[in-house]
Formats: sequence, C-alpha cells, structure tokens
Amino acid sequence: MAKELKDLTKRADNYSQWYNDLVIKADLAEPSAVRGCMVIKPYGYAIWEKMQHELDRMFKETGHQNAYFPLLIPKSFLSKEADHVEGFAKECAVVTHYRLKNGGEGKGVVVDPEARLEEELIIRPTSETIIWNTYRNWIQSYRDLPILINQWANVLRWEMRTRLFLRTAEFLWQEGHTAHATAEEALEEATKMLNVYATFAEKYMAMPVVKGVKSANERFAGAVETFTIEAMMQDGKALQSGTSHFLGQNFAKAFDVTFINKENKPELVWATSWGVSTRLMGALIMIHSDDNGLVLPPHLAPIQTVIVPIYKNDEQRAAIDKAVDPIIDQLRGLGISVKYDNADNRRPGFKFADYELKGVPVRLAIGARDLENGTVELMRRDTLEKSVVPLEGIAHHVKDLLEEIQQNIYDKALKHRQEMTRTVETYDEFKEEIEKGGFILAHWDGTPETEEKVKEETKATIRCIPLEGDKTPGKCMVTGRPSKQRVIFARNY
Amino acid sequence: MAKELKDLTKRADNYSQWYNDLVIKADLAEPSAVRGCMVIKPYGYAIWEKMQHELDRMFKETGHQNAYFPLLIPKSFLSKEADHVEGFAKECAVVTHYRLKNGGEGKGVVVDPEARLEEELIIRPTSETIIWNTYRNWIQSYRDLPILINQWANVLRWEMRTRLFLRTAEFLWQEGHTAHATAEEALEEATKMLNVYATFAEKYMAMPVVKGVKSANERFAGAVETFTIEAMMQDGKALQSGTSHFLGQNFAKAFDVTFINKENKPELVWATSWGVSTRLMGALIMIHSDDNGLVLPPHLAPIQTVIVPIYKNDEQRAAIDKAVDPIIDQLRGLGISVKYDNADNRRPGFKFADYELKGVPVRLAIGARDLENGTVELMRRDTLEKSVVPLEGIAHHVKDLLEEIQQNIYDKALKHRQEMTRTVETYDEFKEEIEKGGFILAHWDGTPETEEKVKEETKATIRCIPLEGDKTPGKCMVTGRPSKQRVIFARNY
Repeated sequence: MAKELKDLTKRADNYSQWYNDLVIKADLAEPSAVRGCMVIKPYGYAIWEKMQHELDRMFKETGHQNAYFPLLIPKSFLSKEADHVEGFAKECAVVTHYRLKNGGEGKGVVVDPEARLEEELIIRPTSETIIWNTYRNWIQSYRDLPILINQWANVLRWEMRTRLFLRTAEFLWQEGHTAHATAEEALEEATKMLNVYATFAEKYMAMPVVKGVKSANERFAGAVETFTIEAMMQDGKALQSGTSHFLGQNFAKAFDVTFINKENKPELVWATSWGVSTRLMGALIMIHSDDNGLVLPPHLAPIQTVIVPIYKNDEQRAAIDKAVDPIIDQLRGLGISVKYDNADNRRPGFKFADYELKGVPVRLAIGARDLENGTVELMRRDTLEKSVVPLEGIAHHVKDLLEEIQQNIYDKALKHRQEMTRTVETYDEFKEEIEKGGFILAHWDGTPETEEKVKEETKATIRCIPLEGDKTPGKCMVTGRPSKQRVIFARNY
Repeated sequence: MAKELKDLTKRADNYSQWYNDLVIKADLAEPSAVRGCMVIKPYGYAIWEKMQHELDRMFKETGHQNAYFPLLIPKSFLSKEADHVEGFAKECAVVTHYRLKNGGEGKGVVVDPEARLEEELIIRPTSETIIWNTYRNWIQSYRDLPILINQWANVLRWEMRTRLFLRTAEFLWQEGHTAHATAEEALEEATKMLNVYATFAEKYMAMPVVKGVKSANERFAGAVETFTIEAMMQDGKALQSGTSHFLGQNFAKAFDVTFINKENKPELVWATSWGVSTRLMGALIMIHSDDNGLVLPPHLAPIQTVIVPIYKNDEQRAAIDKAVDPIIDQLRGLGISVKYDNADNRRPGFKFADYELKGVPVRLAIGARDLENGTVELMRRDTLEKSVVPLEGIAHHVKDLLEEIQQNIYDKALKHRQEMTRTVETYDEFKEEIEKGGFILAHWDGTPETEEKVKEETKATIRCIPLEGDKTPGKCMVTGRPSKQRVIFARNY
C-alpha cells in the first residue's frame, strides 16, 4: 500500500493520470477483458450502494416506485422517435443470434448460423422506447395517470473512448420514466427531480452544482427540454452530473400512447425521464480527492471512522483492544460505521497510508501512552490535521467532526467553483479566459450555430443556461445579437 | 378489480392457468414485446426488493461484499471450461455488431455491416467465466484469500418455453463467487450459503425446503457438487429454489488462477458459486396463494396492513380519518407498513377484493359504529377469518397477528409437504404414486442411467439426495442394486 501510494501521480503533474491512478489504487474499479466495460470492485461498489440507498429513498419519498423492464429492445422500436434514433443508433450493441454451437476440432464454440433472430435486438442504451411501448397498455384514462416509475439497471452505449466511471460502454444507473395528463404536471415533475438530484449532490456528495437548462445542441435525443446539474472539477472542467428531461408528447406520439381526458377526449400522454449513473462516482472522486488519495464525504463513506491500535507487545494490544471495545459500541450507537483494524500483519504506517488512500474521513490511533492519558490521536482526512483529544466523549466528538468535514469539503468545492467562475464581455476575452479553465458566464444569441462555432474554436460548450442568478439581458459575445441572459461555457468531461 | 378477481381461474380447475392469471391480475409482472422477457411491475418489484434487502443483509453478515462485473463475456471464455460450455452455449444471446445505421428510404435502421465485432460477445448466462478471468489478477498468495463476493445482476438464457418469474429469458438474480485456499474451506462456504438460502426461504418466504445434493444429471455445468433447496408447490410439484455449488478447481484450471500457498508452492484456487433469482417470486406466489388471490408472508409483504374506512358522508369520513391517524402512527412505530385507503372513487367492497387479490396480510375496516364502540373489523388474509377487536391496543394486536400469520402459512405449507411425501419400495408402486404428485422417497443405485430411465418413463427426476433425515441404505427400486440412502423423486417446475 505504501508503495502504491508512492506511485500515485500528483494532480499538478497530470490531473488526468492522477484520476486514473486513484481509481485503480484505491480499489474502486478496473478495466475488464471486454472493451470499454469495467469491473466495479467491492470498495467502489460500497460507495455506489450508499449513493443508491439515498437516491432510492428520495425517489420513494417523492412518490416513485421501482419496476424493471427488459434489457433487450427490438431494433424497430429505436426508429420510432426520429431524434432518439439519431442520438442512439450509432452506439448500440446488437444481438443477432441466440445460440452457439461446437465449431468442431479445436475451433471452440461458434455462432450457430441457423439461430439468427428475425429482428435484431439491441441492448438498451436507455429505456424510453421499451417503456413507452409498455405504457401504451397501462394507460387508458386520466385516472391511470400519473405513472411515476424508476428503474435501477445496466445500460450500454458503445463509446469509442472510455474512462473508468466517467465514460464506460456498460454503466449502472437509474432511469425514471413518468407519464402525465398535462404538460404543466410533466414539467413540474422534471423540475422536481432536478431538485432531488441537486439536493443529493450537495447534501451527500458535498458537491455544489449549478442547475440549468441545456441548449438544443446538448439536449437529450427526443427531449423537448433537458434540465441538468453541472459540477466543476478541481481542474476547472465541468462534469454533467444528472439530467432530467421534459419529453413533451414525443414518445407518446411515437408509441401511440393516448388517454381519455376529463373532457372525455383522447389526448397524447406527457412524459419525463431522468437519470444519474455510476458517472457520479467519477465526479465524487475528482471533486474532493488529493495527492494522498481519496477524500470521501462522510455521508457516503463506507467506513466513516477507522481505529488503529499502536502497540509493542501482545499485552499492550490486549489492553487497547479492551479499551476500544466500548468506543466502537458508542460510535455504532450514533450510527457511525467503524472499522477497528488490529490486524497484526501490517504496520501502523502502512495502515495510515492505506486509509488515507481510501479516503476514510476520520482516523483514530491509540497507543499505550494514550491509554494512560485517556487520550487518542485523531486525524481528519480532509485537512490531514492531527490532534490529541480525550477518549471521554470521543464518539460525540467524531460525530460532530464528520458533519464538519462534510460541510468543509462542500465549502471548499464551492469556493473553488466561485473563484473559477468569471464573467466575460468579448469573445477575445473569452478565448483567453477559457484556457485557464473554469466556468465562463457570457452572453449568447441562443443559436446552435454560434454555440458550434465557439465549440470548434475553443473546445468549450454551453454547460447550461442557469435557472438561478443574474438574468439580465445583453448582447452575444460572438455575434452581438440579443441575449436573454448569460449562460455557462466550459470545457467538460 | 372486482371483475378481475372474478376472472381468476380456480386452482382446482387449472393450477397452471391460476398461476398465470394471478401474476397478471395481482399486477406482479407481464410479458414484454421481447420474446421470453418480462416486465416486473411495481407491486412485484416491491416484493423482490424486500427479498433482496433480507438476502443482502444475510450475505453481508456472513462476510460477503458486493461488486459488479461486465454484462458481456467474450465468446472464447465460455469454451474454457468443458462442462460449462456444454451447459450454456446452447442458450446464449450473441452480440455480433456494435452499430446501427440509417437503412435509407423507409427501411428504418439496419445493422451496420462494417461494425462487426472481431470476437462475438455473449450476454452473461452466469458469470463464472468473466469473474474467474478477473480473479486471476487479484490472487497471488494465500494472503489474498478468501475472496467473498456477491453480484446483483441481470442474466439471460435463451429459453424456448418461458413462464413469468418461473422461467424467463432475462431474469434478475444474485450470484456469489468465492475463492479459497483449500477444498475444505470452499465446501464449508458452499454449505454455509445453502443454509443462508434455507433460512431465508423458511423465515421470510414461510416456505419449508429440503436441503440436499444434486445428482450428476442435475448438477450445475462446471460444478463438482451442487447443493440445492427444494420446495413443494400446492400442486405437489417440486421447485428448485436456490443452488450453491462447490466448483472444485475447475474454473481455476480453466482460467489459470493459482496462488502461492503457506508452503510457498503454487496451487490452483478452490471455488464456489451460489445464486437465487426472481424465480423465487414464482415459488412465493405458488406456495401460499389461494383462489382469492395472493397470500403474502408478512415478512415480505410490501403493505402489511391496510385500513379501509366505511362511511356514508363526509362527516363520518372525517371522523374516521381523525381516529385512524394515531393508529397509523402506532403501527408504523412498531415497524409495520400501513396503507390507509380512504380514496373516494372506489367502494369498500372493491377495495376489499383488491387487497385480497394483492395478498395484504391484515385488513382493518372501520365504520361509524366501530368508532362508537371503540372497535375495528379485522380480517386476516391467510384464513380469511374476520373478527371484531378493540381499537385500544390494536397496533400490538396486529403485530402479534402478523407473526402468527407468518408461522401459520409456514406450518400449512409444511403440513402439505409432509402429507405429500411418501416412501415407496418398488418401481411399480413408484409409477402409481408419482401420478398423484408430491415427493417420493425411494432407493436409487446412484447411476445417471437409472435416473434417466425413470425420467423418461415417469417425467420424474431426482430433486435431491437429502442431507438430513433417514440415511438407511437399501436396494434401488429400479435395478435392485445397492443404494446408500433414499433420494427424493418428483416432477418439477
């Protein structure tokens, strides 16, 4: 572990390599034998499970139920919504056969040519099509609405360039799919879920986000409006962390889903969809961690506190074991997850470096002298500060400290974002500022052409049109045409 | 709902149709547009989530961690273990291409012939191969062992005849995959997880099971020994409800996974795998339910108690609402999930039939007269018995009753199994008895040939060689050759 830590690239040397190193060395995930697909290792999966747990609770509290729809989608379904097929057909894994057979001498198994499917099936890149095909039979009247369903699932998009968590061919996510009687209600739902995502990001991930609307260029394929939460990573690049789509009646039209309204007239159903994925793991890792390893927000850390005994002989160890027992109980009693690592095969220094690498928020070290003095050495992972604190009342102290750390890393990330967010007036100024990273607030004329030009010339895109903050109109920095409000430009993941 | 209930086939008329009807009418699942794949509806998924929750807790309490491995497996991996490929190649969905393109005028999208994969990928039918290919890099020395990992995932087997929950092409499951330094330890693990499954089945599903070993014919493809839990359905047929495999060194050999043992010598790693799936939903539905609908064990019921107000006017309704409020709080305070259904658009009779169909264990109905008398009408779903009980102390009464119902349906299922389990001595006797259904305990000479002959002639297979109970040797009912102990024959799902 000490060796592994030593090999961790420094952020200042190569931020991108630092991230890749960290994912591997902190045992979060690794590439698999299948191109672009990852293995999520137990420690990484434990963090994802904590995310799932909180999100799932929040979805249920807002009236949603979970369900499960098929992995495979008939190819023809994809074609039914014109924009959707444009967006997703290019990156689909296609199932063409349903059987293998023995290839004869040394050839292993081969695809059985006789087992060709009449219609090819694609592995879901997202489930709007199969779900709206199903909803058609579930919805007759306004009394059947709303339908508020979420699905936890794996999806697959054949990405050409992949990176662990940030962009993988297969990834895990949740996708909400709701059906409503009115446009207003659907819009309200899309906004509500955007707020759920923002709350989750801020309260659990300690990640400040900007809520906004996507420009047409960045909109989900098939959506009328895409809402997004955008976060800023330590290198100043933006990471789209969750999206919520108002789909209008597009999928209802494509799949012929109508309902009889209160006036007894048939009408197309209104839709939303919204999702976050294991990409959030990438954001979580990137936004807080440092050159010593992960920094995890206490609200999502699988181990919130680790206790390491420091001893010279079995007698000392036994005495420490005994003293630590009630502390573990007290911590657990306060709902804190604790690991007591008294394993004999690794030295304390090794353990310290390992738990720093793994981002455990609070470390307690107890030696023989501490026992005498009734104290314990405490290290907080966010600042790496050490202090000696009384054993008496330690559990409550740790509980308070965990909340303090949660707040501190949020504040730090927010301060960083604020410092890296600037306002520019001219396109020249923009070109200069974008090179320094961060969010640039600038006026834009609202056209895809201007956005495209900026992207080509600077690699920056519009991350969102912010929902909150200054709404003063102005003139587009590129064309001088009228602009309704400033939008956020950034380079992004 | 009343209409739907009326249409439910009676068990005595057609057990199989009763099951199919019930799955649909109780809103548990439905067929999808993709052959053999189902949609699990919110109510069905809520039951599955409760199963997952308890199983996941039990896995973690026995030292396991969750992880996630890729959905897709390179075709060549499947060939590496000889028995495994025999067992699974025939029913694989094969991905051959990774892109679609526009087919031109009215053709929709077509598979892009230029996007053909060099090596085809199969959708996992089970994950031993991809996981053992991964473990190779995780294991160097005995210090890296054991590895105790579980995965919650979807898998796909191209079954020809499918039935909702019982046998679907895609299904949800968990698969444990563990690696050990010794055969003894791996065997102990396989047995431990068999016991976890048996405990789960009995304590949560209220489903008595027989623990046993599979005969060679019924063994998992690639296993040295397969352990199983077998349950008996109401029609006397067996349902294999969970399996735990001792894989020996077969997958370590196939994927070259060795470790340096304590004597500093390289050795192949020992393995287990174990799984239960959404098939358990089928078992749960079949074992307890009746002609009125589902009967759910309280420990897995999404709604444990429903309260229905009976009123003639708004004033009465308001008075009942007010009286019910503290009861809901008390019930929730005892950890009981409650639904108060005071919706105005359905009559009480409708609601009663619906909650019976849905298997809610306890129903409370409160009318104006009840309020005066301080009573409530209670119906328990398992026996359909009604009683009038005091409102005072109702929460504790319900809590006790839920445990009583849980025990009662278990006892009922056990009694049924005991009554339908018979011992036979001769093959003639066997042929007569097997027609009546149930488990037949008979002597068998231990050969696949004899088992095959019995299967062909009677459609019965050996469900398991029981681990517990009478172990007296005897003579095979078919060949007269020596038999070590009686085994269980049955027809099965």
